[in-house]
Amino acid sequence: MHLNAFLMGVGHHEAAWRHPSTDERRILDVRHYQELAQIAERGRLDSIFFADNVAVGPRVKRNVTAVFEPVTLLSAIAVATEHIGLIATASTSYNEPFNLAREFASLDHLSRGRAGWNIVTSGTEDEARNFGHETIPEHARRYERAQEFLDVVTALWDSWDDDAVVLDPGAGVFADPTRVRAIDHVGERFRVRGPLNTPRGPQGRPLLVQAGSSEAGKDFAARHAEAIFTAQRSLADGQDFYSDLRERVRASGRAEGDVAILPGVVPYLASTEAEAVALEREFTDLISPDYALGQLSRMLGMDLSGQELDAPLPPLPEEAAIEGAKSRFTLVKRLAETERLTVRELIGRLGGGRGHRSFAGTPEQLADDLELWFTHGAADGFNIMPPHLPGGLQIFVDEVVPLLQRRGLFRTEYGAETLRGHYGLPPVHNTRAGSLSTAR
Amino acid sequence: MHLNAFLMGVGHHEAAWRHPSTDERRILDVRHYQELAQIAERGRLDSIFFADNVAVGPRVKRNVTAVFEPVTLLSAIAVATEHIGLIATASTSYNEPFNLAREFASLDHLSRGRAGWNIVTSGTEDEARNFGHETIPEHARRYERAQEFLDVVTALWDSWDDDAVVLDPGAGVFADPTRVRAIDHVGERFRVRGPLNTPRGPQGRPLLVQAGSSEAGKDFAARHAEAIFTAQRSLADGQDFYSDLRERVRASGRAEGDVAILPGVVPYLASTEAEAVALEREFTDLISPDYALGQLSRMLGMDLSGQELDAPLPPLPEEAAIEGAKSRFTLVKRLAETERLTVRELIGRLGGGRGHRSFAGTPEQLADDLELWFTHGAADGFNIMPPHLPGGLQIFVDEVVPLLQRRGLFRTEYGAETLRGHYGLPPVHNTRAGSLSTAR
Repeated sequence: MHLNAFLMGVGHHEAAWRHPSTDERRILDVRHYQELAQIAERGRLDSIFFADNVAVGPRVKRNVTAVFEPVTLLSAIAVATEHIGLIATASTSYNEPFNLAREFASLDHLSRGRAGWNIVTSGTEDEARNFGHETIPEHARRYERAQEFLDVVTALWDSWDDDAVVLDPGAGVFADPTRVRAIDHVGERFRVRGPLNTPRGPQGRPLLVQAGSSEAGKDFAARHAEAIFTAQRSLADGQDFYSDLRERVRASGRAEGDVAILPGVVPYLASTEAEAVALEREFTDLISPDYALGQLSRMLGMDLSGQELDAPLPPLPEEAAIEGAKSRFTLVKRLAETERLTVRELIGRLGGGRGHRSFAGTPEQLADDLELWFTHGAADGFNIMPPHLPGGLQIFVDEVVPLLQRRGLFRTEYGAETLRGHYGLPPVHNTRAGSLSTAR
Repeated sequence: MHLNAFLMGVGHHEAAWRHPSTDERRILDVRHYQELAQIAERGRLDSIFFADNVAVGPRVKRNVTAVFEPVTLLSAIAVATEHIGLIATASTSYNEPFNLAREFASLDHLSRGRAGWNIVTSGTEDEARNFGHETIPEHARRYERAQEFLDVVTALWDSWDDDAVVLDPGAGVFADPTRVRAIDHVGERFRVRGPLNTPRGPQGRPLLVQAGSSEAGKDFAARHAEAIFTAQRSLADGQDFYSDLRERVRASGRAEGDVAILPGVVPYLASTEAEAVALEREFTDLISPDYALGQLSRMLGMDLSGQELDAPLPPLPEEAAIEGAKSRFTLVKRLAETERLTVRELIGRLGGGRGHRSFAGTPEQLADDLELWFTHGAADGFNIMPPHLPGGLQIFVDEVVPLLQRRGLFRTEYGAETLRGHYGLPPVHNTRAGSLSTAR
């Protein structure tokens, strides 16, 4: 079983910073994030992960989410940890591939092989408007750009062979120029000559992660992702997604084991189920309806300000009409419609994990639940989203991980040195000496 | 007097990695860079600085220079230091202003107010070709873009007021929405709505640094820079540059004290002058002519491969015809022509600092020299470029800094908490509550 700790401020619940269990001032304190990573490492987790978007969220009055640029933050965490993988979100829509390839190659070196890239296409209008667009680029165009972007980035990582750095002071050979190559990419959107100016990192390529669950997103993930984060609210949904994704992986010519599928879970844990339910209730009661409406507006791509809270949502369009995050739209729409929720009820359900599944119970119950999903074809592991931090991560590491270890489901020591190794993947070697054109 | 340590691999001399005083394997080791920063901090230096370019250098066989992306690297150094300023180079030609503003705001938070940005426009063809261009964008166009880029970046930093983050859990107010504003920038090259999604950093704005010495570069520096790195090979040249720059600062309506002018110096230090000269000679003898020709080609913007080493340079055009780094071109041209150097001699002179001044002597002699420049209107401090690392920085910190301190020229303890403070500048406050449009 693979476990990723999805970290966000002082917790995933939108009101975490208002709960007495957290210290809201730590949101801007790098030591907080270093300590979270150290707790996760103590639990032998595969990785930590920071989401990102490139716009201030709606309702800045009530909360902000991703305050620091994730690669910059993970670099500060890399040097305070030894083993745990470090996954940063970065956008293919609003970066230059050369810069992104270099940042992740740098992080891979600085962390000695622990860098991972969560590939996103950035589906909100607020983000588009920070980068010269009037509105969100079309969903299909974003994925086309993502494909070419990824082609360029991987070619840049591969522009240095494994053994290109010779470092022979006597002969004065720093690198073997036949093992460092221009890539001469000429595509519809990018023209990039290369090579990269950072030598190949310890992993060859950072781990590729994806969380898109639209049709285009699932196909992209099936072709490229090595770990997949997904929001699945029931075992049956999880099983459907898992088998669908596995089938797409096979269809794209890859081995099933090359991909780890990690549904998210927001765990409210206490020593009795009643206490855990009460804890979740405490968080729900702290929700600011106006902030939650802003988050919901963002997820649905429509402005809900002024919406009556005790009425159902207005009628929603079909997914095909959505240019933003299609699958999150559909998840919310299904939840609202099938359970006939009022907006207030919907907000309560979404408060903890923006659509991800919540779980309230004892550590034993959560271990049972994770084992069930893991052994019933719904998950290769889990994306753990503590509602409050550091407490919610501490209790998971101290009380759930040991149960999983005792059941033989989870590692008791790190068996590998790199993030790819934690996920059971080999490094990506590159020894195509002399192919393509050589650097001068 | 202000002192910046300009760090590069295992030394500024192009053959530093071949010299027995260095361990070339440390070029890819983050702990090496952390230790260099700690040495500089032990000497109470104002700052450390990493240059950058966004292409592999010519002659990758012989050396590479900037291997890691500087912000990523400085973030790992920030958490291993307490006081010293952290200056990263980043390009206005090949980044998006929103991303750059966010990275530097993040670094400013992670370092508790120690971030600085060395603004470059990227003047080589190799770089242009990694970002969709066939050749270097015209010099004047690069500076026009730099101006608009900086306007956007500073507006984004200013999109949060000092006191915008309220963090009142009881009232549920994270930030005051009247103190977080869209910037609604619409210019010739950029359309950026804002606000930034990172709150205002401890310095308000990171320190702005510039090293352009062309006419356009000097005007840009005079309008915006708070520290200026420059290559000046003689006291007279240094005095001319210093008074010219100061005059431009006055003409642009700023106070002279708002800018620190820091000429570079590459110090070869030993307990006798003869030993120091011999040390410099050891480095010169290790130069690979083909690497040095590549560096020279890059500085002059012309291909010199196949050039006869014991002949003078071919005739060079006037600076006006150069679209790359104009002032570095002129510096090299003047050096070659006025001293009638052969290419081999020119390469030897440039080997240590790519045009910056070398100094070989005792610590006492260097302290005298720095004092002379400092007290004779040529410098507010110095950009120290150790030819070999860590040794060249260690001897500067342990043997030159104490002399400067004893003469009352340099601080004995840090008197400020931020990089701006080290350079005698106040934080940039922003309290224009309610101006512009407010964030939702």
